[in-house]
Amino acid sequence: MAALNQKMVGLGTQRSVIRELFEFGKKRMAEVGPENVFDFSIGNPSVPAPDSVNETVMRMTREMDSVVLHGYTSAQGDPLVRKKVADSIRRNFDFEVSPDSLYMTYGAASALCCCLNALNVPGAGDEFIVFAPYFPEYQVFIEAAGGVFRLIPADIEEFQIDFDRFEETLNEKTKAVLINSPNNPSGAVYSEATIRRLAAVLEEKSAQYGHAIYLITDEPYRAIAFNGVTVPYVPKYYKNTLVCYSWSKALSVPGERMGYVLVSDQMEEHDLVYAAIAGAGRSLGYVSAPSLFQRVCAECADDTSDISVYEKNKEILVRGLRDLGFFCVEPQGTFYMFPRTLIPDDIAFCEKAKDFNLLIVPGTGFGCPGHARISYCVPTERAERSLEAFAKLAAAYR
Amino acid sequence: MAALNQKMVGLGTQRSVIRELFEFGKKRMAEVGPENVFDFSIGNPSVPAPDSVNETVMRMTREMDSVVLHGYTSAQGDPLVRKKVADSIRRNFDFEVSPDSLYMTYGAASALCCCLNALNVPGAGDEFIVFAPYFPEYQVFIEAAGGVFRLIPADIEEFQIDFDRFEETLNEKTKAVLINSPNNPSGAVYSEATIRRLAAVLEEKSAQYGHAIYLITDEPYRAIAFNGVTVPYVPKYYKNTLVCYSWSKALSVPGERMGYVLVSDQMEEHDLVYAAIAGAGRSLGYVSAPSLFQRVCAECADDTSDISVYEKNKEILVRGLRDLGFFCVEPQGTFYMFPRTLIPDDIAFCEKAKDFNLLIVPGTGFGCPGHARISYCVPTERAERSLEAFAKLAAAYR
Repeated sequence: MAALNQKMVGLGTQRSVIRELFEFGKKRMAEVGPENVFDFSIGNPSVPAPDSVNETVMRMTREMDSVVLHGYTSAQGDPLVRKKVADSIRRNFDFEVSPDSLYMTYGAASALCCCLNALNVPGAGDEFIVFAPYFPEYQVFIEAAGGVFRLIPADIEEFQIDFDRFEETLNEKTKAVLINSPNNPSGAVYSEATIRRLAAVLEEKSAQYGHAIYLITDEPYRAIAFNGVTVPYVPKYYKNTLVCYSWSKALSVPGERMGYVLVSDQMEEHDLVYAAIAGAGRSLGYVSAPSLFQRVCAECADDTSDISVYEKNKEILVRGLRDLGFFCVEPQGTFYMFPRTLIPDDIAFCEKAKDFNLLIVPGTGFGCPGHARISYCVPTERAERSLEAFAKLAAAYR
Repeated sequence: MAALNQKMVGLGTQRSVIRELFEFGKKRMAEVGPENVFDFSIGNPSVPAPDSVNETVMRMTREMDSVVLHGYTSAQGDPLVRKKVADSIRRNFDFEVSPDSLYMTYGAASALCCCLNALNVPGAGDEFIVFAPYFPEYQVFIEAAGGVFRLIPADIEEFQIDFDRFEETLNEKTKAVLINSPNNPSGAVYSEATIRRLAAVLEEKSAQYGHAIYLITDEPYRAIAFNGVTVPYVPKYYKNTLVCYSWSKALSVPGERMGYVLVSDQMEEHDLVYAAIAGAGRSLGYVSAPSLFQRVCAECADDTSDISVYEKNKEILVRGLRDLGFFCVEPQGTFYMFPRTLIPDDIAFCEKAKDFNLLIVPGTGFGCPGHARISYCVPTERAERSLEAFAKLAAAYR
């Protein structure tokens, strides 16, 4: 009998709800035809990368020295890549960052793991606060780093922040607060007022406890905001901010695993924090982010895929579901919406939805029961035709 | 004052010996001209990727659906990629593996971290045995996973295994043994006799202690073997073997970070071990290996760069250094050699070498004092001209 790390066995064998829906969907598609199954379960970009991405791949492959192009970059990322990304941040957010404040990573997931492992002091009982609804892997990453996961219940009226519950939860063991705006699963964008208030609370509590409380902002959906909504650039509001970015969604390249950590230039003890992040990357076996796509993403840092389809689908589904009696906070970005389920038991509700070939994900897994996530990164005609199925689902509860 | 994880700060701020040599080299090149500095410090492939790599990049980018090509693969890797790799292993090593025994990773470093985190049971005091000379990051990875690093001194006559010391060190806490053949830094290849004996000892001790002792074999240099030397395929000799492979050196694509873990099909409790590896990958923030290069490496799995330059350089340097009175075990692969230094103090010796513009790395960092690593992934004329500098170095000790 092998003695294995049972936590890892558990993480590796757990079948996720989304994976089970996927398997159900495949089976159902074989029965009723793929066009009649409305799979809103998976958050994969459905639009191609902008042409600039593939053009840059081809050009660099043709023109660059192979030994350089495919060679190791330095652990923190190629210097020219980091300069281009810093320039892009300055242009787009009117915020000054040094190339030496950027650490290139395998997408936002590994950026988060770098931050968490850098900050968590083993044995100190460091706490990391997350706001529901939240991306479930946050708990996995926080606990893998040895931290304590603290969840603040959702503000279900607006999906901003329940500051009363937040302030009750803050204490001297709070090491960092992790936010995700635009948000998976709600599609909400934290307003400037929310960010300002969050910064003010963190500043006050940092002073009170005599140590920095870090703000980690996970931003893979930053580029996908609707109706000209502005997503506040968090480091402008709070100096002890770590930005975890990914090009996965902006450039529709989630499989290429490219992102970064930005350690705000204004951070207290900036160089030590940066060093800890580099050390964490090293101890996690990261070595360096993929070399070709470091260069491609830096070159295309100001581009995005054609995200208009997401906004179009959002309009159709929000209007359609509201007409059917659903309560739904209007998403301001991402390709998710998070309506309330028509009964409190979201798991039973999503199970029922399968009768109508609707695959939607219970909110319970996102720390927010009584809701369901709809991923509308699908063809628009599929979104349109799904309303009939949603109508049948709603009728089942009348 | 920020409370950071001091271990991570340390890992991130430590300037490595190799990095310091690199900085010294840059300075010296400015003084005497780059052609007169003999930089044998860095282990980066110096030959381009085979044409098939860049041709495959171009073809896939041109022909494949962007959403698929750059999309997430499943966490363990694209099924077709894993099938092609399994087929390649069968063809090349006459050994049967299932695609479902392969877990694609960010190169060998992340493959190792997956294995170590999967196997180490927190709080159990699990020990991981490594043989000197060894790649120094092994200690970082083992300790990051929570394991205890146990080092067996080198067999400096042949760079095989000192079995007496090994057997003394094995005990019921031994969770795994980590080998690296062809070896960085010695260039040695473990013979079939060594592997057979290692397997016999591990089988005996596993039975005695009542639990599997895993054999982790780190094989980024497998493809670089000289004079038709055969590198034994370890899973054929020991069922509880985990292979950590990387295409970094075989295809000269170290920056693209592509490798895999193979969980031998014959392994006891294969499915649990595989699950633990997948769980470890998840907890380390790996998500999935880069999608384009998964496909490229699978397509080119039977190719290699033109490695003949490494063998040519090896011949020149081994012959040249032996003529100068150096003792040097003949490398059978890699692009490293590991001669004895002419004085016992290898650090002083390598410092002295800098006077002659020779950049070589002390053996102490590889757990083997009294030696120095020479990385001969350099242009052949540079290797030839370096002999004059080595002659001056040797003369300094006469």
